[in-house]
Amino acid sequence: MKKNIAYISNFKEWFDEFSFYVPMKVRFSETDMFGHVNNTSAFVYFEQARLELLAHLGFSTENLSSTESIPVVADLQCDFLKQIFFGETINVYVKVHQIGNSSIDIHYLVLNEKKEPCLTGRGRIVNINVHTGKPTSFTEEQKELLVKSKDNHETK
Amino acid sequence: MKKNIAYISNFKEWFDEFSFYVPMKVRFSETDMFGHVNNTSAFVYFEQARLELLAHLGFSTENLSSTESIPVVADLQCDFLKQIFFGETINVYVKVHQIGNSSIDIHYLVLNEKKEPCLTGRGRIVNINVHTGKPTSFTEEQKELLVKSKDNHETK
Amino acid sequence: MKKNIAYISNFKEWFDEFSFYVPMKVRFSETDMFGHVNNTSAFVYFEQARLELLAHLGFSTENLSSTESIPVVADLQCDFLKQIFFGETINVYVKVHQIGNSSIDIHYLVLNEKKEPCLTGRGRIVNINVHTGKPTSFTEEQKELLVKSKDNHETK
Amino acid sequence: MKKNIAYISNFKEWFDEFSFYVPMKVRFSETDMFGHVNNTSAFVYFEQARLELLAHLGFSTENLSSTESIPVVADLQCDFLKQIFFGETINVYVKVHQIGNSSIDIHYLVLNEKKEPCLTGRGRIVNINVHTGKPTSFTEEQKELLVKSKDNHETK
Repeated sequence: MKKNIAYISNFKEWFDEFSFYVPMKVRFSETDMFGHVNNTSAFVYFEQARLELLAHLGFSTENLSSTESIPVVADLQCDFLKQIFFGETINVYVKVHQIGNSSIDIHYLVLNEKKEPCLTGRGRIVNINVHTGKPTSFTEEQKELLVKSKDNHETK
Repeated sequence: MKKNIAYISNFKEWFDEFSFYVPMKVRFSETDMFGHVNNTSAFVYFEQARLELLAHLGFSTENLSSTESIPVVADLQCDFLKQIFFGETINVYVKVHQIGNSSIDIHYLVLNEKKEPCLTGRGRIVNINVHTGKPTSFTEEQKELLVKSKDNHETK
Repeated sequence: MKKNIAYISNFKEWFDEFSFYVPMKVRFSETDMFGHVNNTSAFVYFEQARLELLAHLGFSTENLSSTESIPVVADLQCDFLKQIFFGETINVYVKVHQIGNSSIDIHYLVLNEKKEPCLTGRGRIVNINVHTGKPTSFTEEQKELLVKSKDNHETK
Repeated sequence: MKKNIAYISNFKEWFDEFSFYVPMKVRFSETDMFGHVNNTSAFVYFEQARLELLAHLGFSTENLSSTESIPVVADLQCDFLKQIFFGETINVYVKVHQIGNSSIDIHYLVLNEKKEPCLTGRGRIVNINVHTGKPTSFTEEQKELLVKSKDNHETK
């Protein structure tokens, strides 16, 4: 990888820490008049993979409306390494990179069918109390689920 | 108009009944790899114009979450007469075509800057009670607002 | 089915003629503030299923840019029978309903995991010459592919 | 501003350097089931403002398909400071922050009607030769247009 990306210190290590991924077919409506997938779709893929990871870890995402706290996006970034085209199936990898008291840093990697990195990204999610709109600590149970997911990376 | 469209009996009369419209700039992300606006964006334009018409008529759309009933789409259709391109500003005309007890039929017309019809459409909106999920009559006040909007067409 | 839908004369027969479908996970970004999938996403699902059917039938959709003719949407309609929610996986059924010289009528049916019909739809696709922008006949080879797909329905 | 954002050293100075902006109405389909604008829409707003700025500076964006080089997104990031809701009109500010040989760094700021910052962002755009797919220098004429835009900031 020739490109310098601030949130990746060692690309190989960073790459190897991913294990959870969601395969997605590129949709025609996600292309733009330049003939490739429009940049805004990267964040649709990231969000979908993030919510499936959270569900996989045991966070209920189906009854989000009846919950006390919701995961809100605090920041997001994406590096576009390679164009993605209609007809491709991509694998959207996602991992919990860092766990704070009321927030987590999530990283993303999108590979095409040739296993070439097309997108990398990261973003912080904050746990927001639905009544106050303020950040609120994860429960101990939630923290354990998050830590367990991180341990899985490291022992891979 | 050479094209036969089931919901338009006389194009000139139908055309003349519109008065309310919302100008919209075509967004780059709405194009697709064929170089024009993707067909799915037509329904984004329709929805936006419909909600602005309802707000204009006095239906509160800003605090939709605190309301007793919400306008839900029962069906939608669109005829694509002319391609729309990035860089164009379109005028999205919208009118109340028919008023039922708990539903209204809304018609749409999109003109480009040369005033050429690019899209026509229609769709029924049903007033749904947020607690029961069932259709519910419009209030007398709401019906008056709707009828007034229709009268405006006819006396134009 | 209590609802009258103009393009469905006998719901059971119409239903039974579908065989090709594409499973799709509902994406979070496809929901709206009413808590369900926004109406505009129906047409994203339809388009995706349509293009996968055409690819399955042998129409090249991957190198759409190098082709002589492209399938352009002439009209589209959708009936919304049941709300769709985040977290659901839907099956988007699609079939060729009628074959013309330069156009085809395509029908759609979306079932949720309980096999309840959520959306039905139809729309005409016109084969457009990329140089002239005018409708152009399907080739004999393309017509055979389309007819074969229809025969499959009828002998099921 | 309590929040630390790596690409903003002095918020007031950074803020004051913006002058070009595009007002946009939030669309209903841009909301999600959390009741606010979905995070992916931020990048739709950024792209639209960026392309309008480039057009304003004299870069032809209308006939993008006939051009020798196109502006491609290399990276993008966004900080979400305040939720945006349906019904709001936002002003999307955009400025050229840094000019390279074949790339520019563009910054973004979104204010709501109370002039509260809701989103900040940045991203690098690379000038790509459409035939080779490789970065290519801006022409001298293009560089002048970009520099002029930057001078406007500084003398404001």
